[in-house]
Amino acid sequence: MKILALDTSGVVASAAIWEDDVIRTEYSMNDNKMHSQTILPMLKEALDLTDEDLSTVDAIATAGGPGSFTGLRIGAATVKGLAYALNKPILPVPTVDALAYRLWGTEKVVCPIMDARRDQTYTGLYEFKPQPPMETGENPGTEQELVMHVLTPQCAVPIEEIVEKINDLNRPVIFLGDGVPVFKERILKQAKVQVSFAPAHMNRQSAAATASLAAYRARVNMAAHGGVLTPEEGVVETAADHTPTYLRLSQAEREKQEKENAV
Amino acid sequence: MKILALDTSGVVASAAIWEDDVIRTEYSMNDNKMHSQTILPMLKEALDLTDEDLSTVDAIATAGGPGSFTGLRIGAATVKGLAYALNKPILPVPTVDALAYRLWGTEKVVCPIMDARRDQTYTGLYEFKPQPPMETGENPGTEQELVMHVLTPQCAVPIEEIVEKINDLNRPVIFLGDGVPVFKERILKQAKVQVSFAPAHMNRQSAAATASLAAYRARVNMAAHGGVLTPEEGVVETAADHTPTYLRLSQAEREKQEKENAV
Repeated sequence: MKILALDTSGVVASAAIWEDDVIRTEYSMNDNKMHSQTILPMLKEALDLTDEDLSTVDAIATAGGPGSFTGLRIGAATVKGLAYALNKPILPVPTVDALAYRLWGTEKVVCPIMDARRDQTYTGLYEFKPQPPMETGENPGTEQELVMHVLTPQCAVPIEEIVEKINDLNRPVIFLGDGVPVFKERILKQAKVQVSFAPAHMNRQSAAATASLAAYRARVNMAAHGGVLTPEEGVVETAADHTPTYLRLSQAEREKQEKENAV
Repeated sequence: MKILALDTSGVVASAAIWEDDVIRTEYSMNDNKMHSQTILPMLKEALDLTDEDLSTVDAIATAGGPGSFTGLRIGAATVKGLAYALNKPILPVPTVDALAYRLWGTEKVVCPIMDARRDQTYTGLYEFKPQPPMETGENPGTEQELVMHVLTPQCAVPIEEIVEKINDLNRPVIFLGDGVPVFKERILKQAKVQVSFAPAHMNRQSAAATASLAAYRARVNMAAHGGVLTPEEGVVETAADHTPTYLRLSQAEREKQEKENAV
């Protein structure tokens, strides 16, 4: 299986090609440039260099939101255009889940935090657990897959609300995401557990992680439906159906609503 | 601080720019193309797209070996050329250490395995531990850095030798690297501990991880020497001094030696 993945949900623009558990190419950029100017040239460049042919792609994965409104719209428009032209399905992955997946393998609680402006963060809580769990008396050399579990689904909340949840869990936590420089001080002030912050090579969005998680979800979905990818739990969508998950109203919508409420 | 990093030690060719704990850009390719044909075009493309100017780079990080002989030589030649032209220091990172760093944050033992041919693997054993360790009675909200420790330094050995060491440690282990598809069956046959394999987005070389580890080592080195980067433990080298660590003789050298021994 071959998956093209795009992630433009945050400041990073990222494109990757996943094929049979290997990333063939990944190209990521964390700059102040408009994603609309960068994502297609990046994709074209990466495809050219690897002699990849878009028509050999089986599905297109994308960070399905939340995130920057403009970023999500550019991502969705690009992905829908590609999927429609190539007649391939879209695999939308919750943005915060994909960010958490960068820390695959840790036993600590993972807390991605994206700066959602207006003093909120797009966040969630995750953990990785061995599957299947060890049976008593089982050959201990058995391979165990580490699977991501959602403790708190992605949401838009003030940073204090998620730190309170972490304190209640009373487990060490690793933070990552562009919310870290914004909220670090307030986290350290409030946290009652061991707190760590992910280093540069795993602390932002990456289309490789988005692709990897999309591939995992597709595999689980197919295994449950006799090898057929089935639109359950939003794992797969058509080009026509796909829309990003914003979790909040856009500024324009919010102002319109406030105006209406004020009348 | 700004670090340009290149990694051509394995099948992946990868270039990245690290700046103050953020990856500005990363471009990686896992293809059968010659690194000599790809690494400079990739670098140029990434620099152009991000409007980065090579002259603003403070140091050049590289996977310092072991690895593919040709890959290491192309990497070293490129890095030496850049460092000489720009008059910047080289930060060589042991290849296997940089690969292990991709799994930052896990409590399991990390075992990178690269296919070294001739039935050997370039490997080592690593763990991540909180630093400073928690003091009794300390405010538990204190930030803790997770620091990588080397349990077994990088070496070229048969896969069975490293799995024996892992069995002696008697701790869960995560394998990653291009040696996984080659040695997986033999690992699962011999292992007496819980075994997991890293997913696609973190199972191969990445210049971002190389840069991240180089930055960490440089920071520790500078902190120990009053803020000055000091050539201790090979953390920094000049363009003239840098040579890759091969760990083994090349095929040509080996054949020459065998011939001489036979005389």
